[in-house]
Amino acid sequence: MDRTEAEEILQSAPFHDFLGLSFADYERGRVVVNVPFRDELVVNQEHGILHGGVLASLLDIAGHYAVLSQAGARVPTADFRIDYLRPATTASMTVTGEVVRMGSNIAVANAELSQGNEAERRTVAVGRGAYGVSHVE
Amino acid sequence: MDRTEAEEILQSAPFHDFLGLSFADYERGRVVVNVPFRDELVVNQEHGILHGGVLASLLDIAGHYAVLSQAGARVPTADFRIDYLRPATTASMTVTGEVVRMGSNIAVANAELSQGNEAERRTVAVGRGAYGVSHVE
Amino acid sequence: MDRTEAEEILQSAPFHDFLGLSFADYERGRVVVNVPFRDELVVNQEHGILHGGVLASLLDIAGHYAVLSQAGARVPTADFRIDYLRPATTASMTVTGEVVRMGSNIAVANAELSQGNEAERRTVAVGRGAYGVSHVE
Amino acid sequence: MDRTEAEEILQSAPFHDFLGLSFADYERGRVVVNVPFRDELVVNQEHGILHGGVLASLLDIAGHYAVLSQAGARVPTADFRIDYLRPATTASMTVTGEVVRMGSNIAVANAELSQGNEAERRTVAVGRGAYGVSHVE
Repeated sequence: MDRTEAEEILQSAPFHDFLGLSFADYERGRVVVNVPFRDELVVNQEHGILHGGVLASLLDIAGHYAVLSQAGARVPTADFRIDYLRPATTASMTVTGEVVRMGSNIAVANAELSQGNEAERRTVAVGRGAYGVSHVE
Repeated sequence: MDRTEAEEILQSAPFHDFLGLSFADYERGRVVVNVPFRDELVVNQEHGILHGGVLASLLDIAGHYAVLSQAGARVPTADFRIDYLRPATTASMTVTGEVVRMGSNIAVANAELSQGNEAERRTVAVGRGAYGVSHVE
Repeated sequence: MDRTEAEEILQSAPFHDFLGLSFADYERGRVVVNVPFRDELVVNQEHGILHGGVLASLLDIAGHYAVLSQAGARVPTADFRIDYLRPATTASMTVTGEVVRMGSNIAVANAELSQGNEAERRTVAVGRGAYGVSHVE
Repeated sequence: MDRTEAEEILQSAPFHDFLGLSFADYERGRVVVNVPFRDELVVNQEHGILHGGVLASLLDIAGHYAVLSQAGARVPTADFRIDYLRPATTASMTVTGEVVRMGSNIAVANAELSQGNEAERRTVAVGRGAYGVSHVE
């Protein structure tokens, strides 16, 4: 699926609109998504920590669009798993999704969520998921 | 941890406020969380489907509070896995979390998200996660 | 798939032969597998503990045959996840697999491994996996 | 833990003996394990395919020893997840484990199982697991 079509799908979802998502990069089998900080994503205001559930959502989304970029129109998540490596601070995030297997009916994608700039980038959480695919372009 | 203290923690998180969460039931090792429908949770407006990432968040939250109800103050999620069984429709949800193992430093909880009323309840997604525990009450 | 055909497949695999597997129960969507103890399954001889990797294999197998009992001939495991609840002692085991979702191209099954007799049965480990299905009977 | 001590533990387990395991490489936080082919590992003799449950065992073992190389004496697996990328053929295998997070009570490790030689190496399956750690050296 080309980038314009994928962006339309990305922006048509009210939950993505709430999250303020946009593609920083979009290739066949690999996408990078930018996520701005907003107050509603916080779990612990005292220590300034983002909600782990939000990170789970973002990792699944990155994996989903990585698969979508390589496959047809519908790639529902079958299952998804997240490992939290360190707390996410109250700052913007970058999420990368990458296809590691494209089968005839199941695709697998890795996802990685990081914070910080080029000079000092920290991986906050990683995920991996299985997606149902109906056909590969 | 008693229910009043857990409710304070639940309601202190801006992301929980966004989700409108409240306990329908709260026992030692098992909690039930009510989640009202709101437009921002939708992924597909045409077909009226809730975002899978939202379901992932909710399952993790239910597991987290189940562990919290039996353990001490901090139980960060170490990892979490979700299986999607059917699409979630644009309606309210119920999420149940239940402790299946309480170890000295790791707890495991099951979570189940359902929709519908008593007469016709459908399980939409299930999850299981590992939580770090520092001490058990 | 009927029991006789499933038993032929079960017994044709050298690894199953090594494990000494047999069906204690076989229904559409749910199977129970008996696993005798043997010395080669041990990880820690001093404390008499079975190898966690063996338990992972057994849980995947139980989930696989549960899906097979309801679906067509080939149901390769796409992914599988195991949670260890307590150490397995040097004794025989019972593994139950049960289908929780049968989709058009992906099935999900739960698995549970226990030890002990009817009077005192302990769940040692649980698993859940996604299986590719080509057609449902 | 140093290599000699880890090798003693590796070789003391009857299941590892059955699998014929040995370290090809052993560093702090990263291990490579060699696994010879043997007939008992086969699931499908007709097509020459190794048993997925065996691969699950091997991935967990590699992750376990990666954590052990960096942590204290006991690092029981809390949970483990495997994704199968392609069938394993009847040949020797190489399994790599690598620590991605070393927390005060939970460690996370990645594992990768491959076949083939340097010229043509194929990743057959990947895994990720959480391990309980009592203390870090």
